Amino acid sequence: MTYCVGVLVEDGLVMIADTRTNAGLDDISTFRKLQMFNAPGERVIMLASAGNLSVTQSVLSLLREGVDDVEGEEPEKLADMPSMFKAAQLVGRAIRQVHKIERDGFERANLRFEVSFLLGGQIGTGEMRLFMIYSAGNFIECGRDSPFLQIGEHKYGKPILDRAVTSKLDLYDALKVALVSMDSTMRSNLGVGLPIDIAVLRRNALTLEVDHRIEAGEPYFHDLRERWSAALRAAHRAIPRPPYGPPVTK
Amino acid sequence: MTYCVGVLVEDGLVMIADTRTNAGLDDISTFRKLQMFNAPGERVIMLASAGNLSVTQSVLSLLREGVDDVEGEEPEKLADMPSMFKAAQLVGRAIRQVHKIERDGFERANLRFEVSFLLGGQIGTGEMRLFMIYSAGNFIECGRDSPFLQIGEHKYGKPILDRAVTSKLDLYDALKVALVSMDSTMRSNLGVGLPIDIAVLRRNALTLEVDHRIEAGEPYFHDLRERWSAALRAAHRAIPRPPYGPPVTK
Repeated sequence: MTYCVGVLVEDGLVMIADTRTNAGLDDISTFRKLQMFNAPGERVIMLASAGNLSVTQSVLSLLREGVDDVEGEEPEKLADMPSMFKAAQLVGRAIRQVHKIERDGFERANLRFEVSFLLGGQIGTGEMRLFMIYSAGNFIECGRDSPFLQIGEHKYGKPILDRAVTSKLDLYDALKVALVSMDSTMRSNLGVGLPIDIAVLRRNALTLEVDHRIEAGEPYFHDLRERWSAALRAAHRAIPRPPYGPPVTK
Repeated sequence: MTYCVGVLVEDGLVMIADTRTNAGLDDISTFRKLQMFNAPGERVIMLASAGNLSVTQSVLSLLREGVDDVEGEEPEKLADMPSMFKAAQLVGRAIRQVHKIERDGFERANLRFEVSFLLGGQIGTGEMRLFMIYSAGNFIECGRDSPFLQIGEHKYGKPILDRAVTSKLDLYDALKVALVSMDSTMRSNLGVGLPIDIAVLRRNALTLEVDHRIEAGEPYFHDLRERWSAALRAAHRAIPRPPYGPPVTK
């Protein structure tokens, strides 16, 4: 499994992704799921992936080498796209191209062609945008009313995002909430694990402010996990006893 | 969708279930999913259900009227079972009997035969037990190390249970945590909604201490939701700013 989340606030964009891949519980390894297509000062394009690893890797290779699914046209690379919208379209085309190649084999092996991507960033003077791209190559965009998108094992970490994230949130508070969401997911699903790749992009900066891998044992993340656990325990302790049942006697 | 959770602590058993059923977003109604098979002083058997409503209703009817899948034997009723283990076996048999009848029709309609049940309670001098029964009729039992079981839309509400529930937890704290877990689920999934049925059974009491329906607007639950939201906001605010990126200047 995988968990990736992108948070798009007024100040900028946060993207984080775990790195655990598994083909069964006894075949677990580490793979970077947050990929960069950056030219500092010109563009920052980040792509996080979830789903079948062979497919996401092929899609990534196509995006780097060039997608050539339209006959008679030059292969196009993600790093050359003039806008984030065009970039999202290209990811969709790359997925469809891989699907065309793999479909029959997947059907024979009874495998599901299941991938999803988060694409976020800013190109030149264009808008900063965040998209989620589905297996079919179609995509949706992150809006201001619920300014985050998730892929992979997303449910465990959604309640905190639903409650805490607004587009007014400070950029590093957004990072903090994203890390809490990641922590909730890691605690409840073994398929999501450290290290975690994190990236912070301030609006109109066109250069990453943070591009970091949080390894196991890193003090800040360890402290965040401890504090969050303690706060949750304190929070439910502070809620009064339910008024049902007999009066308390002890 | 549905969300039901059972928590089995040393003091006793808590079971809660929402009541929303839906066949599509435009066909939502209320149906009791937490059913009782009680004889106060003798036995308390509680059954919570999730999945296809036609199947769960048929299973319930069989359990009340008698399951007769073994040829030459008398139909057996859930309320007559001598132990919780036998009761869990009977629920499994009822599921298999409904499956035998419905299988072909479900296949023709391309419907999935998907149900699950939580069965909890105590019979006479037997042990208090909590089981989860699957579509195939097989079942698992709740253990002391992670003393809760969930059915339905379970992921949103699992992180708080993972963190807060131990078998030493006070019975009404267990109810409180179960309600917080329900709240997290309701906030993130429209398919789970009020009213909520709650039940509390103290070990060896053989009579329910609480058997209550929480309706929309009930002050305690409203207050719990507000307090929990406020506590979560305070909790993530109290976590220090991530130490990545440039020093804070503002």
